[in-house]
Amino acid sequence: MKLINKWALASMTAAVILSAVSCSSENNYAPAENKDNNAALENIYTRTSVREYTGRQIPEDTITILLKAGMSAPTAMNKQPWKFIVVNNQNVRNKLGEAIPGVGDKVRTAGAVILVCGDKSKFIEEAPEYWVQDCSAATENILLAANACNLGAVWCGVYPVQERVNQVQSILNLNGTDLVPLNIITIGYPTALHTPKDKWDAQNVVVVN
Amino acid sequence: MKLINKWALASMTAAVILSAVSCSSENNYAPAENKDNNAALENIYTRTSVREYTGRQIPEDTITILLKAGMSAPTAMNKQPWKFIVVNNQNVRNKLGEAIPGVGDKVRTAGAVILVCGDKSKFIEEAPEYWVQDCSAATENILLAANACNLGAVWCGVYPVQERVNQVQSILNLNGTDLVPLNIITIGYPTALHTPKDKWDAQNVVVVN
Repeated sequence: MKLINKWALASMTAAVILSAVSCSSENNYAPAENKDNNAALENIYTRTSVREYTGRQIPEDTITILLKAGMSAPTAMNKQPWKFIVVNNQNVRNKLGEAIPGVGDKVRTAGAVILVCGDKSKFIEEAPEYWVQDCSAATENILLAANACNLGAVWCGVYPVQERVNQVQSILNLNGTDLVPLNIITIGYPTALHTPKDKWDAQNVVVVN
Repeated sequence: MKLINKWALASMTAAVILSAVSCSSENNYAPAENKDNNAALENIYTRTSVREYTGRQIPEDTITILLKAGMSAPTAMNKQPWKFIVVNNQNVRNKLGEAIPGVGDKVRTAGAVILVCGDKSKFIEEAPEYWVQDCSAATENILLAANACNLGAVWCGVYPVQERVNQVQSILNLNGTDLVPLNIITIGYPTALHTPKDKWDAQNVVVVN
């Protein structure tokens, strides 16, 4: 890699022990209790994809908590170019499950099914593709909020695979609208405890000193 | 919108008061303390873009906490198609600031500058563009972890604006490598407290019953 020739490459200290996470106190706005901040970090570190659910439906107020998390994501030029489709209809869920590889069984036992869609009417004219990044950040927020609520969830990709986009648009009658489905999030009460993967890899860090 | 013709459109209850967030207790794995879960939600709700910093550098162990959050994001087929470039060199930071609109002043007072890059060698052959979604989720995790550490941060877009991609690749000598810069995250100790935007909008929710 050319990078090595020009810049010093140093690997970061790899050992970040979950139980020992601590934020630097070198700042202007130290928290009253570090424990709360650690809970937020631990929630990020422990999120993992959960694909099997008990079948119990998720109450509307909890779904609202998740959607509020989605809408808290940053967006380019604050366009908020999204719509969130909550699919409660089991027949529609089943059609999505049949059409999209990997969604299948999940929609039958999910407690909630949310489609994250881009809204073309709010895309940035000069760089419309930023909607993908905005809606991905929103999706991650929903997954993290689900984890915080002790729910399990998984991100099932739709866009940019055109065949999947067409299927979802057809099932939800989105043709002719401004909505482009990015993904389907299935969420539910987990049937088992899940151990998150440890994906830390110091080789994925490059330091330019 | 055709959607209205076919499916019932219902707006969700809009009032989610931050101080009153609570997760449903209807699940198999109720937390010992709800407070911790609420802290994770509050961290998502209170993240906001912070663009002015004190100039104090962020310790390496805190940067590691942020990167570990980035690497905790989900990725399509678990490819983890990313590299994180930590730019400590002030000369390089300044060049990035001059080249990329909106980065400018931030790099001069940032306590850390992280570039989130896609790694082409790990892209999915049939759908390479999923890297954008994967790296966006990682970026959001870094921003949230920064908020949990009482740091401020902002996501400065690079990809897919080709001119910006070229500039960053040139400054960091990435040409000929597998790395595609998605964004530049500037992070620092805030100079002031920031009130997050309330972006909840019930009109962005569509319910299919």
